[in-house]
Amino acid sequence: MKRIYNFNAGPSAMPLEVLQQVQAEFLDFDHTGMSVVEISHRSKAYQNMQDETQMLLRKLLDIPDTYKIAFMQGGGSLQFLMHGANFLKHKGGYLNTGVWSQKAKQAASFYGEVYDVASSESEKFNHIPPMNKQQTFAIDPDTDYVYLTSNNTIYGTAWQRFPMFDVPLIADMSSDFLSRPIPIEQFDYIYAGVQKNVGPAGCVIGIIKEDFLAQANDMLPDMLKYKTFFDNDSTYNTPPVFCIYFVNRVLRWLEANGGLGVMEAKNKAKAKLIYDVIDESDGFYKGHATLDSRSLMNITFNLETPELEAQFVAAAAKRDIIGVKGHRSVGGCRASTYNAVPMEACEALAQFMRDFQRQH
Amino acid sequence: MKRIYNFNAGPSAMPLEVLQQVQAEFLDFDHTGMSVVEISHRSKAYQNMQDETQMLLRKLLDIPDTYKIAFMQGGGSLQFLMHGANFLKHKGGYLNTGVWSQKAKQAASFYGEVYDVASSESEKFNHIPPMNKQQTFAIDPDTDYVYLTSNNTIYGTAWQRFPMFDVPLIADMSSDFLSRPIPIEQFDYIYAGVQKNVGPAGCVIGIIKEDFLAQANDMLPDMLKYKTFFDNDSTYNTPPVFCIYFVNRVLRWLEANGGLGVMEAKNKAKAKLIYDVIDESDGFYKGHATLDSRSLMNITFNLETPELEAQFVAAAAKRDIIGVKGHRSVGGCRASTYNAVPMEACEALAQFMRDFQRQH
Repeated sequence: MKRIYNFNAGPSAMPLEVLQQVQAEFLDFDHTGMSVVEISHRSKAYQNMQDETQMLLRKLLDIPDTYKIAFMQGGGSLQFLMHGANFLKHKGGYLNTGVWSQKAKQAASFYGEVYDVASSESEKFNHIPPMNKQQTFAIDPDTDYVYLTSNNTIYGTAWQRFPMFDVPLIADMSSDFLSRPIPIEQFDYIYAGVQKNVGPAGCVIGIIKEDFLAQANDMLPDMLKYKTFFDNDSTYNTPPVFCIYFVNRVLRWLEANGGLGVMEAKNKAKAKLIYDVIDESDGFYKGHATLDSRSLMNITFNLETPELEAQFVAAAAKRDIIGVKGHRSVGGCRASTYNAVPMEACEALAQFMRDFQRQH
Repeated sequence: MKRIYNFNAGPSAMPLEVLQQVQAEFLDFDHTGMSVVEISHRSKAYQNMQDETQMLLRKLLDIPDTYKIAFMQGGGSLQFLMHGANFLKHKGGYLNTGVWSQKAKQAASFYGEVYDVASSESEKFNHIPPMNKQQTFAIDPDTDYVYLTSNNTIYGTAWQRFPMFDVPLIADMSSDFLSRPIPIEQFDYIYAGVQKNVGPAGCVIGIIKEDFLAQANDMLPDMLKYKTFFDNDSTYNTPPVFCIYFVNRVLRWLEANGGLGVMEAKNKAKAKLIYDVIDESDGFYKGHATLDSRSLMNITFNLETPELEAQFVAAAAKRDIIGVKGHRSVGGCRASTYNAVPMEACEALAQFMRDFQRQH
């Protein structure tokens, strides 16, 4: 079986060992005589698996007992409105680093006033807005929370350190979740769609500080209330069982491979292979993100013309390298080097980039 | 590999041939060199698969071109509020046949006035409210739509024929979707969580009449608007790729096995095996649903005492028969005989029920 070099931005590459394990046990989950897609979410087999998934998340991310974990559906897009519906009472502050934080702000605006705490829009989101010396930003009075996107898939930027606020901090970590250790206690609510580093599309993991959850709006239909998920152990209604199970196997793989510190070091080494080609190309490849804001997950760059970029994408495909076309909203090229993208794939891409430059 | 007799109410048994196919092709979807969980939802491979899934649904259910199809997340529970958010302007009418229609009414009440068109609550939901001679029910002036649940998993009742109204009709068909042919044109909106007859938990299929969709409320956050899904071919955001793919394989299986007419005949024969044991048991097994309202999907019954019911469930497990405990909200026993539950499993259950009666 041919295995392609997959640089998709999400859904994206999953660890081959995990795929093989899921395949091997697909007809009989945990000796139940059923496939994992056939088990009841009220069964002991399911509950054990979900409990272990939470336990592994706590261990890998060092999540304190004062935080709860839940599994939800609807992707980051549903979170864009849910965080507002639950927590926006007076004003929501947004760190505007691209389309995803803008969409969150826009959806939240149905529930109250919203504003930009800082923005890099005027420079095409090529950097993360710089913090002041106190590692924070000035905010308006009556701000209920500040919201940020930890990694910006489209622009290839990422927060290297996170700001600190006197008000709750909410983060969308969909595109770099579990790619590096995180200072959990700096955040009051973290959510992540799993379809980048962690599993198949169809599940969002939420991590919330209990006393922040207690402040959530109760006057909402059940399925828009965070309490419905966090206070009912994710089984108020049928959870996305297969996705959660797959995440479980990825978490086991992460643990067996040394945890998030090791993963971050690998991700740095992988990204360096490609950033080095960009930096050594004498401007043939132009990195979009400024040096201090570069993402380890999404490496964005342009070539001289859109025509040359199209040639680049087509030539890559001939070497079994796929997913290197930029997001349809901005064009250019992008290589996503999530946890499961092997070093070997990044070496192949780096070599191809050098070869392509030589030939053009 | 042992395969258990799975009578779970959902998630539930899937066709063994489909499980085997999914397993076999899990590492390489459609010659892409990637697992289906790794493909981009913007890829041609994905689009082809989604297009085929829609085409198969149209064919199996005979869906006219004036209807659109979408794949959503959040389960029936999110639909409970979405149908109200989109369509409730003055009054929503509900055919109250159990907890699921009540939950839909309750969630919709956040968006307007709601009332019961008819109810069987006073008789513990043991029947479907009878229609009048015009095959309908009287409704209030200013009713925007009438809402029904086609099959009631908890009580084991199902609409045998569907009522006709001068206002739009919305149906939750989660628990008998694709188990029988449906007169689609009697409905303006049909939705179904797939985790009973059709696939793994994590996807809802919606089928909507275009001129009804045109009436939907636009003043909502994107992810609550039906138009977001139906007008963007289900890919406004990342859809639940694996679930949709699995549904595709189940639809192919349904087509290869003769379609919904054949499936209905099989489901009738399977259910008859078990209803016959109940009817011939001289009251040892007491069916919950009245004869004219019996579901082909969920067969509900009681034994003399809760203790005897617990013995029944435990003894069944010893014969590898699982999932026959009633819903936690009503107790008793329940066998769910969805499309993928084989005749052989129903024969095993019928035989066990006779043996158990003899011994008690």
